[in-house]
Amino acid sequence: MDDVLIQPLDKITLRDPILVEGLPGVGNVGKLAADYLREQLGAKPLATIYSKFFPPQVYVGEDGIIRMVSNDLHYFRPTGAGARDLLILGGDYQGISPEGQYEITHRVLEFCHRLGVREVYTLAGFAQGRVIEKPRVLGAATSAARVDAMRKAGVVFSKTDPGGGLIGASGLFLGLGRLFEMEGVCLMGETSGYFVDPRSAEAILRILTKVLGVTIDFTDLETKAKEIDRIAQRIHDAEQKSSESAASPPAASREDLGYIG
Amino acid sequence: MDDVLIQPLDKITLRDPILVEGLPGVGNVGKLAADYLREQLGAKPLATIYSKFFPPQVYVGEDGIIRMVSNDLHYFRPTGAGARDLLILGGDYQGISPEGQYEITHRVLEFCHRLGVREVYTLAGFAQGRVIEKPRVLGAATSAARVDAMRKAGVVFSKTDPGGGLIGASGLFLGLGRLFEMEGVCLMGETSGYFVDPRSAEAILRILTKVLGVTIDFTDLETKAKEIDRIAQRIHDAEQKSSESAASPPAASREDLGYIG
Amino acid sequence: MDDVLIQPLDKITLRDPILVEGLPGVGNVGKLAADYLREQLGAKPLATIYSKFFPPQVYVGEDGIIRMVSNDLHYFRPTGAGARDLLILGGDYQGISPEGQYEITHRVLEFCHRLGVREVYTLAGFAQGRVIEKPRVLGAATSAARVDAMRKAGVVFSKTDPGGGLIGASGLFLGLGRLFEMEGVCLMGETSGYFVDPRSAEAILRILTKVLGVTIDFTDLETKAKEIDRIAQRIHDAEQKSSESAASPPAASREDLGYIG
Amino acid sequence: MDDVLIQPLDKITLRDPILVEGLPGVGNVGKLAADYLREQLGAKPLATIYSKFFPPQVYVGEDGIIRMVSNDLHYFRPTGAGARDLLILGGDYQGISPEGQYEITHRVLEFCHRLGVREVYTLAGFAQGRVIEKPRVLGAATSAARVDAMRKAGVVFSKTDPGGGLIGASGLFLGLGRLFEMEGVCLMGETSGYFVDPRSAEAILRILTKVLGVTIDFTDLETKAKEIDRIAQRIHDAEQKSSESAASPPAASREDLGYIG
Repeated sequence: MDDVLIQPLDKITLRDPILVEGLPGVGNVGKLAADYLREQLGAKPLATIYSKFFPPQVYVGEDGIIRMVSNDLHYFRPTGAGARDLLILGGDYQGISPEGQYEITHRVLEFCHRLGVREVYTLAGFAQGRVIEKPRVLGAATSAARVDAMRKAGVVFSKTDPGGGLIGASGLFLGLGRLFEMEGVCLMGETSGYFVDPRSAEAILRILTKVLGVTIDFTDLETKAKEIDRIAQRIHDAEQKSSESAASPPAASREDLGYIG
Repeated sequence: MDDVLIQPLDKITLRDPILVEGLPGVGNVGKLAADYLREQLGAKPLATIYSKFFPPQVYVGEDGIIRMVSNDLHYFRPTGAGARDLLILGGDYQGISPEGQYEITHRVLEFCHRLGVREVYTLAGFAQGRVIEKPRVLGAATSAARVDAMRKAGVVFSKTDPGGGLIGASGLFLGLGRLFEMEGVCLMGETSGYFVDPRSAEAILRILTKVLGVTIDFTDLETKAKEIDRIAQRIHDAEQKSSESAASPPAASREDLGYIG
Repeated sequence: MDDVLIQPLDKITLRDPILVEGLPGVGNVGKLAADYLREQLGAKPLATIYSKFFPPQVYVGEDGIIRMVSNDLHYFRPTGAGARDLLILGGDYQGISPEGQYEITHRVLEFCHRLGVREVYTLAGFAQGRVIEKPRVLGAATSAARVDAMRKAGVVFSKTDPGGGLIGASGLFLGLGRLFEMEGVCLMGETSGYFVDPRSAEAILRILTKVLGVTIDFTDLETKAKEIDRIAQRIHDAEQKSSESAASPPAASREDLGYIG
Repeated sequence: MDDVLIQPLDKITLRDPILVEGLPGVGNVGKLAADYLREQLGAKPLATIYSKFFPPQVYVGEDGIIRMVSNDLHYFRPTGAGARDLLILGGDYQGISPEGQYEITHRVLEFCHRLGVREVYTLAGFAQGRVIEKPRVLGAATSAARVDAMRKAGVVFSKTDPGGGLIGASGLFLGLGRLFEMEGVCLMGETSGYFVDPRSAEAILRILTKVLGVTIDFTDLETKAKEIDRIAQRIHDAEQKSSESAASPPAASREDLGYIG
């Protein structure tokens, strides 16, 4: 079997397309953002990506029908003469081994390169280890020109963060992208790192949509964010109370947060 | 060496064959069911599958003769004009790495595809974490038509189970099977998950044999199930007693259950 | 780089050669036996085997000169008209991953097959978990005829041992050997499993040399065995004393045993 | 994607070049030495090495610009008629799996072989597990002639050290180098193994530069060494005090040492 198997679902010639990547990771921020963008734009399926570097797993839908774990490319064609098309990469998993991460990223980039992609935005969370009221969007880019442009768009370039660099798909899509002569930017939404974080995803999308020149409705994402806030508050209150009464924290309800979004 | 090595043992043209897969897993339910079906039908060896993704191990029989760990395909030809042949896949292990699982499944499916397989049944256990008196058979399938058909045959399609999807061969044979244009169903027998469970295997086979239109004798499997029941009861009694007398549970005898069947 | 790299050191046509394998494992019994046989027979280097499935390591000799970890084939040509040549496989490590074990074994067997090998003896230890006064030699073989022949030579074929089969090179060389139409026998010397065991190696070699029709001097191996006995006795005495005086066992000196032989 | 990808940055014909390798490892001694040599000589970039056997990671510079983790070859051309060129290999990581270590080393050696390299010096730390006042430089080599030559240059060849051999790149570059008919020497600076050790790197470079016939300024390295000394002293004092007052050692500040250099 091919290490990475890309199944085209549509044949289409794209207009100078831009790739937006958002896969599961810290606070699921990147995935939340990419999935929300895809849904709001009504992007259409372009290709499904299977790989032996994903877990050997299928999901079962509520209808009882299975689908194999995958990554997926969708495309969006804005109306308007000079508009550029968007490619959105999302999915269930990143590769589960280092080699797998390299292989999958390389193969997807190769595929996108053939579709004409020369520009990449990768979306990720940046774990701060504390509650973030107003998440900033940190950045990293492939060139000084991109750094400048993104700084003007509101992205924060910090001398110290992220100290250990970018690990996983969000970094590799930029790093390996350079081998395909793609320029790119990583947008990292600050997040506590403790639970899925739609507010951080929103912060990223506020900037990204402006940069890309697309308009989406943020209502659903804000609703989700408020829902998380409420649950986080409840847990916080419970922990407060339980630490006052010396009991252990309510671990189970904390875990619930991982399943929202 | 080839990653996966399929040694044909017989040359035969099969009549629109159906693949039944049952490999070791939760409660060994899938393997118990597939092995029992093979024995009762008197299915004949078709091919042996070796792989470097199995453990580097050989078994030694009571006669002192070794055989390398493997998966195995047997075939069964029902009498009757329009009857379809069965292929039964069993074996000692699933692949021991995720990549290995993908590779082995893909190669076996490729082989079966060449034999004309267009339909797959995968057999597995579904761990409920509690004692199951009357195991239901849960299902997952590749199409709505299959879901409907299996529901009529008594299979339960639950909106919530299995929540995390299917992991391992039982899922992959359906997922990758679609790449070979095969349709399929996974039958999951409910089981505690604590020991090998012939009763759960029986529940699966009661439905599967009806669907496949074959008849087998269930006496031996029921005998095995009762044997397990007796042991489980003894352990339960001992634990009851020991918890009353504050001693620790008799872990050793609990382990014995793993070796029956 | 090739997964497995076999560097020939000598060009020679062998006479119906028999392969003897002894690599590190339980009690180092197999390796002790193969190394001792090679030394006593004065077998000559035939090939060195490097592999990326060995640890990334070089050894440094007392003279400061490095050599990469490897397996090694030596050959021995007995005098006498109809005598068959011996190939002895030893080395520093077995492959460190399951896939590696398969790959290395397959490549070495392929190489040996080209040299005309049709018969294999693999040497190993069988851990009994208790002190063994007089180690028996347990066996496993590729055919009933071999089992009978070895039983006559004093090998014990037990219905229950080894219950879990043979794991690692000693098993794979027989299992994969069959794919090269080689017949073979595994000789397992009983050992405690707690330290290197020259006495168990001797038990194996007493039978193997008789079967192969070669004669070697056992003095050095017996000396080594007595040395181990003395150390084991000292540790036993110390433990006896320390358990009487409630101190913990002298773990350090126990570990020393691992470095003798 | 290629397992190992070597991107040439310069086309140049080298004069009988000597390879010097220093990658991260014990006390970071090898990397400190190679990096310092490269900086002091003003060596120029020759090639960048990417690999899927490195972590899937990019670094972000203070300017916000990313670069993928890599190894790197620089070259230095000494003035003077008969002088030989130097190649210096440094980088962020060694391969993170055994197979990866073999693959990367093999590919880099192949590349260097084509550039005419016949001689290799590998630089490493040798952990002694205690504070080293005056680090000796231990050695290992590919031939007796090299051992003699290096001994005259002040390298210590010990019958017992390193007992377990050399693990990782410093060993493999010599071991696999022999397959490319390269001769070589490993220089191991004694170090405690507890923190990065510029003093040990200096000890290596004092000998290496003499052997290579190049001159560098050691001031910066000595400054770094003194800085580490001061921090180590402070920690030692704190631990002294805290053990007198029964508190636990200040683990956090100990860790700081890992980030200097």
